[in-house]
Amino acid sequence: MADEIKKGLEGVVVAESELSYIDGDIGKLVYRGYAIEDLSADATYEEVLYLLWHGSLPTREELDTFSETMAEERAVDDYVLEALAELAAVDEAPMAALRSAVSMLSASDPEAETEPQDLEASLRKGRRITAKVPTILAAYQRLRDGEEPLEPKGAALSHAGNFLYMLTGEEPEWVAEETLDMALTLHADHGLNASTFASMVIASTLADTYAAVTGGVGALSGSLHGGANQDVMETLIEVDRSAKDPVEWAKDAIDNGRKIPGFGHRVYNVKDPRAVILEEKSRDLGDASGERKWYDHANKIETYLVEEAGFKEKGLAPNVDFYSGTVYYQLGIPVDMFTPIFAMSRVGGWVAHVLEQLEDNRIMRPRAKYTGETEADWVPIDER
Amino acid sequence: MADEIKKGLEGVVVAESELSYIDGDIGKLVYRGYAIEDLSADATYEEVLYLLWHGSLPTREELDTFSETMAEERAVDDYVLEALAELAAVDEAPMAALRSAVSMLSASDPEAETEPQDLEASLRKGRRITAKVPTILAAYQRLRDGEEPLEPKGAALSHAGNFLYMLTGEEPEWVAEETLDMALTLHADHGLNASTFASMVIASTLADTYAAVTGGVGALSGSLHGGANQDVMETLIEVDRSAKDPVEWAKDAIDNGRKIPGFGHRVYNVKDPRAVILEEKSRDLGDASGERKWYDHANKIETYLVEEAGFKEKGLAPNVDFYSGTVYYQLGIPVDMFTPIFAMSRVGGWVAHVLEQLEDNRIMRPRAKYTGETEADWVPIDER
Repeated sequence: MADEIKKGLEGVVVAESELSYIDGDIGKLVYRGYAIEDLSADATYEEVLYLLWHGSLPTREELDTFSETMAEERAVDDYVLEALAELAAVDEAPMAALRSAVSMLSASDPEAETEPQDLEASLRKGRRITAKVPTILAAYQRLRDGEEPLEPKGAALSHAGNFLYMLTGEEPEWVAEETLDMALTLHADHGLNASTFASMVIASTLADTYAAVTGGVGALSGSLHGGANQDVMETLIEVDRSAKDPVEWAKDAIDNGRKIPGFGHRVYNVKDPRAVILEEKSRDLGDASGERKWYDHANKIETYLVEEAGFKEKGLAPNVDFYSGTVYYQLGIPVDMFTPIFAMSRVGGWVAHVLEQLEDNRIMRPRAKYTGETEADWVPIDER
Repeated sequence: MADEIKKGLEGVVVAESELSYIDGDIGKLVYRGYAIEDLSADATYEEVLYLLWHGSLPTREELDTFSETMAEERAVDDYVLEALAELAAVDEAPMAALRSAVSMLSASDPEAETEPQDLEASLRKGRRITAKVPTILAAYQRLRDGEEPLEPKGAALSHAGNFLYMLTGEEPEWVAEETLDMALTLHADHGLNASTFASMVIASTLADTYAAVTGGVGALSGSLHGGANQDVMETLIEVDRSAKDPVEWAKDAIDNGRKIPGFGHRVYNVKDPRAVILEEKSRDLGDASGERKWYDHANKIETYLVEEAGFKEKGLAPNVDFYSGTVYYQLGIPVDMFTPIFAMSRVGGWVAHVLEQLEDNRIMRPRAKYTGETEADWVPIDER
């Protein structure tokens, strides 16, 4: 019993947290008590960051101050932009480029010398990273397209709006800014997912916020984690190009034993509440543009798999990744920037969990069950 | 019981492993069955890497091929050296510079497109990183000193010897090369320590070897983990400068409630076997140079704390960090390169554990016990 192997740490409770609560049986997600439905409808991403990092929703004055501080911290130093240009030149994957750029930011942090246990300073480091991630990503996309990066606009635009501006060079339409802001809110925190947990493990050694967030970006890049939203969109594009009816396509896929991305989640037995919200947004965007096919493809596949192909019986329902891709795609965002946008949001959760870890820290050191030899006799190389 | 909080994951068994076995009650450490005493005395670090990565000690021919391949992979591209120069110009911490450089290496990996589940390719990625870490670190030290980085020498020098050559520009004396090689062997693996575990968590999402190792470097930079060997040396330098007898200094430190680094380890109740070996090496280096004070300071403090100040009763014995610093210091290595040297060695273990994780992978997703509000009513911002 003591040596029972907890593969993937399933069911292991490793910390207390006041940040996000998930009831996987009824599809409920709250940040510090506030329902994700309320937050995504009524709060900006900046308000959500404030809530996660400072413990309560901000007053108007607090939010204004917070947003101005974030805006002041958006600019990224030239040495980082130069490194991004080098990485773009050899076609580095965007998540890997983001990981390298976030790592390099520590060199110019004005409080680099502070200890991680100085929680106020560790939060400010996290805020600086969070402010700069959209700048890094937009710069990287422009560099890949052979264009010069743009400077951030400052407090005139929201966090979401600034990213869209820096990406395209044009002030975004309201619907695009509001949609991205909502997506950022929906992805900001989600308990001890693998990237958040990676950040906590790193922070538990008293490595700094930059080390922890760099690890979070690395973990999120994996196809079992943040990579899934891109996989979903690539699948839908494949469906579209196949000229098959999406239900036929899905039947064939199932018959061929193919795994369809965007379904199932360790902590939900029902449809992910974030998928419910994103589905609605995807449909609205389709209706507004007159091109509903991406929503329709996804929705037909969902209905078939869940209702007819036995997914419901297996507890497999759409997760957050299943509709987020269609939303970003309709905003004109390149497919391989979907996971980076997830990172742009989740960095808020990483920072919040790092601060919680530091408040009552104990270094993470689990055990392995050793299954190898314990007594091997040394053999000199020429006698092997 | 189900919700018992496993702070720091103490006692939680998260994986099977055939890599290293620790018996903390008798101070025993083996890699794949081979005693650390045999390996440190008779095997080179390259042999240890081969053992960890390929499962058995190499024949002469296998080792020659392996060493030549490592030598071919030591060179680091200019874009990484340019980034290191930028980081050196703003005095970035060496572990942070190493983290950024390792992260950037992925952009030039010839097998960047392979999936992590291709274990042979993931191993080759890990081998390339391991081959390049000494080159990165030596380059960074030279750049900080205002000198040009040196190209690696190739297979004419060992992994340890190449590092010393690239650091100083001179082929190392035998005793220095052999001592560093031994230190690399001693630090190569140690169960699921926090940095190894961070690498595993990241790899569990199917992020690539670069993401995993970058996370390992980040975790090792923390003062509760890799940072401790530097803390020990800084303490010994402080003792030396205090002009107090080391025992008097230690008494005062204890009376003042000060924590003395280099003692105690979660998995050892007795003296760390690596500390036993490093203590002997530290004394030998002192005898050879005629300057034994660093060994003597450390040894006097150990004897006092363990025998007289109650450390033995508390199960606090010297850990690997307590004597490693005095060894590196006597080799003329700058104090803030001690933790990077730990990384230069432990990268071998990170890669080995990443491969084991991938062999039978399950994404790491533990749980938190939620202690916050679950039902908060939304309040519009102007009513807060």
